[in-house]
Amino acid sequence: MATSRFSMPPSASTWNSRNKSKVSLQRVNITSNAIQKTVRFSVINCSLKINLHAQPALNGEIRVPSVIKEMENEEITSLSVAGRLVKGGLVFQQNVSVRSFEIDSEYKMSTKAIMNYLQEASLNYAKKIGLTIDTRFGITPGMCKMDLVWVFRGMHIEVDRYPCWGEVVQILHWTSASGRTGVRFDWTINDINTGETLVRASCLAVMMNKNTRKTCKLPEEVKDELKDWLTVDVEPIVAAFKYSCPQIEAMDHIKTGLTPGWNDLDVNYHVNNAKYLDWILESTPDSIRDRHELWKMNFEYRKECLKDDVIQSLSRVVPNNEKYRGIEVEHVLRLESGHQVLRARTVWRINSHSCRGINNMKTIF
Amino acid sequence: MATSRFSMPPSASTWNSRNKSKVSLQRVNITSNAIQKTVRFSVINCSLKINLHAQPALNGEIRVPSVIKEMENEEITSLSVAGRLVKGGLVFQQNVSVRSFEIDSEYKMSTKAIMNYLQEASLNYAKKIGLTIDTRFGITPGMCKMDLVWVFRGMHIEVDRYPCWGEVVQILHWTSASGRTGVRFDWTINDINTGETLVRASCLAVMMNKNTRKTCKLPEEVKDELKDWLTVDVEPIVAAFKYSCPQIEAMDHIKTGLTPGWNDLDVNYHVNNAKYLDWILESTPDSIRDRHELWKMNFEYRKECLKDDVIQSLSRVVPNNEKYRGIEVEHVLRLESGHQVLRARTVWRINSHSCRGINNMKTIF
Repeated sequence: MATSRFSMPPSASTWNSRNKSKVSLQRVNITSNAIQKTVRFSVINCSLKINLHAQPALNGEIRVPSVIKEMENEEITSLSVAGRLVKGGLVFQQNVSVRSFEIDSEYKMSTKAIMNYLQEASLNYAKKIGLTIDTRFGITPGMCKMDLVWVFRGMHIEVDRYPCWGEVVQILHWTSASGRTGVRFDWTINDINTGETLVRASCLAVMMNKNTRKTCKLPEEVKDELKDWLTVDVEPIVAAFKYSCPQIEAMDHIKTGLTPGWNDLDVNYHVNNAKYLDWILESTPDSIRDRHELWKMNFEYRKECLKDDVIQSLSRVVPNNEKYRGIEVEHVLRLESGHQVLRARTVWRINSHSCRGINNMKTIF
Repeated sequence: MATSRFSMPPSASTWNSRNKSKVSLQRVNITSNAIQKTVRFSVINCSLKINLHAQPALNGEIRVPSVIKEMENEEITSLSVAGRLVKGGLVFQQNVSVRSFEIDSEYKMSTKAIMNYLQEASLNYAKKIGLTIDTRFGITPGMCKMDLVWVFRGMHIEVDRYPCWGEVVQILHWTSASGRTGVRFDWTINDINTGETLVRASCLAVMMNKNTRKTCKLPEEVKDELKDWLTVDVEPIVAAFKYSCPQIEAMDHIKTGLTPGWNDLDVNYHVNNAKYLDWILESTPDSIRDRHELWKMNFEYRKECLKDDVIQSLSRVVPNNEKYRGIEVEHVLRLESGHQVLRARTVWRINSHSCRGINNMKTIF
């Protein structure tokens, strides 16, 4: 499966479709403690140890594999550049090392870097299974014939722990059909040593005609191309949290005049979807940004953004919201014309840890 | 050795010191053709095949190793995350894969991404040899005691070919003393399959007291810490090209109101030195940027840049300059107060290649 670096759903609807059914794997053994469940499965070509973390099973059933840990660390490291298919090609695995230029002031991987690597895994998966024409970003032959490209409609991310500089983490990625409209991408980012799931993300991608800029149903021809790579009967690894329409008139933190730089554009000269996070941060109150970290994020992409666009970033802290044990903020990015580019809702928690002063970095190298 | 993500030389002098002597390695065999020389050396613990490309030997002597290719590709790939020491620790080697979010519209690695990876190699080298305290950015115990940090003074980069998306390249990095003032960092980025040197870069780093913000000579204590890791008698892999003082009053391409975002800051809340390249591009004429690629770059860092600074980017095409077979542009980044943050000179050539449509990407994976 594939994705696009840009995000442009012209319609205003929020993604809320969910697939209710469950994964079916052959369970071999199960143990549990207060923090997590560890389940052993026997699947195609490998024996997997899977940790279920912060994503409890519903009705005792398993929702999705979160960590594949059948290899020794040395072997995992050796695969980090290549990426590989597991579960008969239904899951793509890639290991990445957190770079010095991808961290924040606490030496933790930035949320923007996380979003970049989610996209990277999707594109590498598409290349790996041979679905991409040449180097194009996840464009299948059928899509090419019909002038279709992928666009992100909604992205949902939850971060349990941010990886540290130098840490090698494992990305798992799989895809599934989402009704008749599109394809859902799911990812986890996992601690290689402990098996802990650090990040969970889920995104709906739909087809857009690159000439008319209109989205359309998944054509049968494209469905046929993808069908062998779609996991069936799996719920999203993370679902959108519910929230009402943003109260733009009440948004009291505003930053205007934001413009994309040349390095923010993708191969189609659209602004990379991860760039939107930069702009959200610009209007997030200092008091929140300085002492908190992003915990949960819902992004609803509404319009593409081009090089010459000038963006206004508006934010508002949602009052009296205790359901998330964090501070909830709603955001809108819009053009000066008033057209909305992005709606987002973020939940922030007190900085849970710092990677400063961690003395065992050498062991990672 | 180590470096810092930020760049702040308070003095106005241009770096022009050069070490004139040559590398001494035991030559085993030498062959040559019209394009490049291939020399075989026998050095500590390994037999190296070294390609000298676009950097001809002076007086028949070898200036610096550019590619180490004693391993099979599979083995090289397996080391890409870890990085490793070669030549008895005098050279650091790291392999990296060009990510989808690090490319330009022609699917080529961006110059900014190249600059980020140069820094990454330096910091990983410092960690690898155990010189870094905790996770701090290349701070040795001696530097910590004296409140010293590294700052870049001048960076010189030449790109022969930009790597493509998905390509795995090999970074080699070594350091050497540069007079009494600082340490020179050198890097090459090499094609793993052909041994071709794609990028050469050289940078002077000096010590700055983080309280007084003044630079100082390399203290004896720090020299002692570094001495085992400094290559001696090696010329810079690429030297600054000569140019006169920028004619600011003649600069006719101006972009004002540029501001750093939160994700542009390093762990010390300074703007990452690679960000300056974004701002240079903003005032580079469209006609140059759209049909050309950066070939040679000289950056002279003059002042640190912080979150609330507002930057003006000024550029001017240097007229009647034929010596480089390219278009030469001079740039200044300055604060609204007039204080200069960066002086730069770039040379652009017609886009030499595109990575679009390359059909063998799967072989890299």
